[in-house]
Amino acid sequence: MTEKILRGKIQSAVEQVRSENPMAPSITNTVTQDFVANAQLAVGGSAAMIYLPDEGETMAQIAPAVYLNIGTLQPFYAETIPRTLRALKKFSTPYVLDPVAIGIGVLRTELFSQMKNFPPAVIRGNASEIIALAKLWDLTESAKGKTRGVDSTDSVGAAKLSAVALAKFTGGAVAISGAEDLVTDGKVLVYSSGGSAMLSKITGGGCALGGVMATYLSVTDSLTAALTGTAIFNCAASTAEKFSDAPASFKVKFLDELYKVSAAAVAENPLRLEAAE
Amino acid sequence: MTEKILRGKIQSAVEQVRSENPMAPSITNTVTQDFVANAQLAVGGSAAMIYLPDEGETMAQIAPAVYLNIGTLQPFYAETIPRTLRALKKFSTPYVLDPVAIGIGVLRTELFSQMKNFPPAVIRGNASEIIALAKLWDLTESAKGKTRGVDSTDSVGAAKLSAVALAKFTGGAVAISGAEDLVTDGKVLVYSSGGSAMLSKITGGGCALGGVMATYLSVTDSLTAALTGTAIFNCAASTAEKFSDAPASFKVKFLDELYKVSAAAVAENPLRLEAAE
Amino acid sequence: MTEKILRGKIQSAVEQVRSENPMAPSITNTVTQDFVANAQLAVGGSAAMIYLPDEGETMAQIAPAVYLNIGTLQPFYAETIPRTLRALKKFSTPYVLDPVAIGIGVLRTELFSQMKNFPPAVIRGNASEIIALAKLWDLTESAKGKTRGVDSTDSVGAAKLSAVALAKFTGGAVAISGAEDLVTDGKVLVYSSGGSAMLSKITGGGCALGGVMATYLSVTDSLTAALTGTAIFNCAASTAEKFSDAPASFKVKFLDELYKVSAAAVAENPLRLEAAE
Repeated sequence: MTEKILRGKIQSAVEQVRSENPMAPSITNTVTQDFVANAQLAVGGSAAMIYLPDEGETMAQIAPAVYLNIGTLQPFYAETIPRTLRALKKFSTPYVLDPVAIGIGVLRTELFSQMKNFPPAVIRGNASEIIALAKLWDLTESAKGKTRGVDSTDSVGAAKLSAVALAKFTGGAVAISGAEDLVTDGKVLVYSSGGSAMLSKITGGGCALGGVMATYLSVTDSLTAALTGTAIFNCAASTAEKFSDAPASFKVKFLDELYKVSAAAVAENPLRLEAAE
Repeated sequence: MTEKILRGKIQSAVEQVRSENPMAPSITNTVTQDFVANAQLAVGGSAAMIYLPDEGETMAQIAPAVYLNIGTLQPFYAETIPRTLRALKKFSTPYVLDPVAIGIGVLRTELFSQMKNFPPAVIRGNASEIIALAKLWDLTESAKGKTRGVDSTDSVGAAKLSAVALAKFTGGAVAISGAEDLVTDGKVLVYSSGGSAMLSKITGGGCALGGVMATYLSVTDSLTAALTGTAIFNCAASTAEKFSDAPASFKVKFLDELYKVSAAAVAENPLRLEAAE
Repeated sequence: MTEKILRGKIQSAVEQVRSENPMAPSITNTVTQDFVANAQLAVGGSAAMIYLPDEGETMAQIAPAVYLNIGTLQPFYAETIPRTLRALKKFSTPYVLDPVAIGIGVLRTELFSQMKNFPPAVIRGNASEIIALAKLWDLTESAKGKTRGVDSTDSVGAAKLSAVALAKFTGGAVAISGAEDLVTDGKVLVYSSGGSAMLSKITGGGCALGGVMATYLSVTDSLTAALTGTAIFNCAASTAEKFSDAPASFKVKFLDELYKVSAAAVAENPLRLEAAE
């Protein structure tokens, strides 16, 4: 994997989504559904959100990729999530997992544990969530991620080993959002920069990114999908913060930029590669 | 029904809602509740969203009109929707139905089937949804609507016969959203133009339109309500796209225009009439 | 309590939230979760929304303050709310209650009744809701609040006695939103002015205010928390309406101002004190 090849794949993914309008449905939290859907639409995809078990199964059968985010669990997810996971496996439909709120509540822990048997193609979280998931799945010894609801209390660097371990286990990609974002497939570490601190002043930036990664996963491989989502978010946020100094107008500009930014600009967003080991 | 009379009724409906502030409550999907409520408020109405069976019954009793959109079903809707439908009938409260996601899942099909016995005053959907509903209710033979989640794969023209059949059956109005929108009461076909392709780049435009039709249904007849909602959306979107070239800023401007556009401008929005047969 | 001391406490609360970033989680309605969370983030706090009983208990244990708003009840709230209330009491965690939709539905009435045994630190509502809650808790004889979903049909003045009675009973603060807002701890009446009529043209202003009061309650006493939330909303809305003449752009500007307004400006927002009796 060279940087040049990677940039070419990113550019293609951006263009392909804009021309093909793939629908990547979600089971996602109720707080940020609007942001997730509008971000998916802004990059050129389509959106649908569902709750019921048989709808999850249908979705797993017909969709090119799915987004799972159980940030706001409801009781019937005890049935929806396992049945959706089985259907995703049966139909070989890849999914993006956002392990938001990991560690809170009995049902969430149970569901995240089950997901070990249904490895996601992409895992996207902040450093603390990635560390906590790797620990829950017994993939790391030393990890000690601490989450505070949706906020990270760890740095991207501290989660590097957990991310690599998760990627090696799933055979997919893992993305850690931070000041400099890290995306890895367990072999290569790709650091993506840009973005804006203002993204932490609005709710759902991470959720929207997970949804957009699922949109790209509809047309490309795990590593490229995770990296394209990361790069377009970094591009759009960098531009948006030049036009706005406050969160709500930043969000409007950010979504506008997801729609307007050129595929070439996304492919040229700063990134650097390292070997994972 | 002449064009002049129709335009007069549209203008009156816009003005009456602004002066009377009617509340048209909704059982609607969780993704776009914010957009539905803010659109209803922007045109001068008020909003309330509920989930529970007894709340649906109360709503049906006290509200002038109701909006039903089961885009994101939850398990207890199996009880909420039938009880609400019975109460709507009992209290002769008209409702607007958005058949979004028709064809997905066992419970949704069951609920849409039951609604045949509780005919909505207004049905608003895209072409594929209108075709699918007419077929589900055995009102058309040849129809073959295919939905893809929330997206239409059919044209407005292809859904004309289904719309007329539905309107004749319900005795109400049917509105099909498309490049040129069609509203019919089964006797007259009214085409409304304007609008913006940008509306398809944000989530919930159709849901918000359904909610706004319910707001107008609080003060006028089915055909006028469906047409007024369609016309104010077309007006506001046409203006908004002159000020914005990207989805999030378009949405802000669009909601602003729903609030600011004059009743006269809505009444003058391009429309043309044809006989249905 | 002098005006000068109160203004000093307000300024400190604004500054402390911005430096400490406290997380005040919510069980809140699904319509306005995005607005609540983004308002909490804009003033410098953090947000999390949950549904399940054990998550409510966890939240009550680890959070500095909690926001409860049962505007959109779901069936399992019958278990979530009582268990959360018991945990809030057990861990002496203060909470802000928004009695939105009081009077609608059997379960909501039951839950509001139970809350009498778990007195909230802050109650925030419109005049009709405050009157209705005081009546439900048998604290007033003459009160006759009438709610229409989320809208008030009574004036702030008409709810004064109810607010004082509620504050005396809970030992906390009560805030009534209106043209001029009233905040009381049962001993002093503080009137806060400013704001904008445009806030009534967008959905969730009251919900967002309740959430922001919970954020301030994380760092200060009940009266100061209620008053600081009220004052920063009045400041931000006053400024926003100077820049916008329509609801959606007003909302963007309003959230921006929650983020940008200086602590000194919030403390200097017009207020006047009266003795409660």
